Amino acid sequence: MPRAWHLKSRPNGMPTSDNFELKEVTLADLADGQVRVRNRWLSVDPYMRGRMNDVKSYVPPFQVGEPLEGGAVGEVVESRADGFAPGDLVMHMAGWREEAVVPTAGLNKLPSIPGIGEQAFLGNLGLTGGTAYWGLLDAAQAKAGDIVFVSAAAGAVGSAVVQIAKAKGMTVIGSARGPEKCDFVKSLGADAVIDYKAGPLVKSLAEAAPKGIDVYFDNVGGDHLDAAFAHARKDARFAICGMIDGYNSGEPMAFRYIMRVIAMRIMLKGFIFTDYMPRMGEFIADMGQMVASGQVKERDTIVDGLENTPDAFLGLFTGKNTGKMLVRL
Amino acid sequence: MPRAWHLKSRPNGMPTSDNFELKEVTLADLADGQVRVRNRWLSVDPYMRGRMNDVKSYVPPFQVGEPLEGGAVGEVVESRADGFAPGDLVMHMAGWREEAVVPTAGLNKLPSIPGIGEQAFLGNLGLTGGTAYWGLLDAAQAKAGDIVFVSAAAGAVGSAVVQIAKAKGMTVIGSARGPEKCDFVKSLGADAVIDYKAGPLVKSLAEAAPKGIDVYFDNVGGDHLDAAFAHARKDARFAICGMIDGYNSGEPMAFRYIMRVIAMRIMLKGFIFTDYMPRMGEFIADMGQMVASGQVKERDTIVDGLENTPDAFLGLFTGKNTGKMLVRL
Repeated sequence: MPRAWHLKSRPNGMPTSDNFELKEVTLADLADGQVRVRNRWLSVDPYMRGRMNDVKSYVPPFQVGEPLEGGAVGEVVESRADGFAPGDLVMHMAGWREEAVVPTAGLNKLPSIPGIGEQAFLGNLGLTGGTAYWGLLDAAQAKAGDIVFVSAAAGAVGSAVVQIAKAKGMTVIGSARGPEKCDFVKSLGADAVIDYKAGPLVKSLAEAAPKGIDVYFDNVGGDHLDAAFAHARKDARFAICGMIDGYNSGEPMAFRYIMRVIAMRIMLKGFIFTDYMPRMGEFIADMGQMVASGQVKERDTIVDGLENTPDAFLGLFTGKNTGKMLVRL
Repeated sequence: MPRAWHLKSRPNGMPTSDNFELKEVTLADLADGQVRVRNRWLSVDPYMRGRMNDVKSYVPPFQVGEPLEGGAVGEVVESRADGFAPGDLVMHMAGWREEAVVPTAGLNKLPSIPGIGEQAFLGNLGLTGGTAYWGLLDAAQAKAGDIVFVSAAAGAVGSAVVQIAKAKGMTVIGSARGPEKCDFVKSLGADAVIDYKAGPLVKSLAEAAPKGIDVYFDNVGGDHLDAAFAHARKDARFAICGMIDGYNSGEPMAFRYIMRVIAMRIMLKGFIFTDYMPRMGEFIADMGQMVASGQVKERDTIVDGLENTPDAFLGLFTGKNTGKMLVRL
């Protein structure tokens, strides 16, 4: 019987492996319009931490005792759905498990693009890349010539933001932790990189962006967001994608420079990838071109084996990943 | 010789009367294109506190030893400028003093509108009303049917926001301090009023706005802004006009609910009245109609005598004003 990771208990603060339980599941027989998928790649993403709380948010919370969910790429092994045949590769949201029965409404058949691996549809051509693309270009309205600051720039979304911004003619400052990740961000084309553990961010950003910033792409919140307030130029725009600093702590965030919102007429906008689903074609066309041309490259941190999925997920909060964190089955 | 208030020293935290000095000034003889104005009404506004710091902001800082500035309405007593004659009433920025020499570029001749006192051009038809109008309708994109929360609703800007929102078909919740001011806010037409000293704002706002809020007009920052984060509905819009909570304290502001920016796709925008100067005609036409029809009423707190200008200003931070604070000379 296939196995699936279940939420055993809700974490209080930072999750631990005790919050997860791997159990066998019985899959129902296929109904019309359903396929059975054997997963090959699982995505773990910081936003999943929010679903582990019992709080209504933009996606419903995971339920204790029930299987977890998340992006996955798999192969159709049985089909009672028109247009899907065994062997087809599909992207869907029934991750955290070996096999799943999925209705066609929850399936996207992967297009075959030369030189692009199937796991890219969980990365630069999936939720991760789409989040970077729409956050930068729509929520923050970034344009050629802008000075862009992006936090967690060595992460999955951040590394895509750096490369999209460079491809679109912007100046980019990224933050990351430690010399290795900073080198990686520089290798993506960033004009300046801040090691955010090396000193106070307000000071580091002043040095890295002596003219200030026009755009801030926030994956972190906290001190990063405050430094962005401190150095925003007039009419700056902030896309708020994530605040990983606050996902586990539950502590309030303190801002010393938030009043600059007024003087600098800062616009700040929260956004979620799924809001842009109707524009998926536009994204795949533009991003696919940037990926195919090599302007946007994928760097994955791959963990092997379903057993290690919780560890991969927990590693997101301790900086274990460079680029996209994936589990290979 | 006419007298003018000077900045004697920069305040550290809450200003005191020791930071101000009343001194005689010598006015230069009029050059071509200048008029001499005798002030009749002076405006004191919270934003002036920012100009007392030695920090570059959207308006340059006041200089120690130099006269203060601010909105004023006065009468032309001498003119070497085409189109201005003794007896004309004008609005200008050389307040905090008895007399000033002003070039025509800094003068607005007051239109004569039946039933509207000259001081309205410092209030509902001036900076105060314009700030309320553009913040609500442009920065926050508020529209009929929206549920609007406005802080400091008994203040000059807040009381205009309440009335404009009601005139435009919105539901309005205002916050104010103490039963007297709350009654005043209710008398302006607010659907619900929160006495923000009576209990935690997050709880009070939940009761006053059980369906949540679509728009927040921020004059205060701090706990008010955090409560607005906590109760924002999807696609809520926040106009950030002022953060009087932080003007004197210099302390960072802590937010427990700021992460809801993402889940609720909140848009937050700082704005300043002067950005809308090119649209002054549009404002006067619409707001003038609301004022003339009685939909938007003016309530002033009037302090008499130039000597008392610093006290009037300091009173803004201790809640001495209901509606617009003005000094009558």
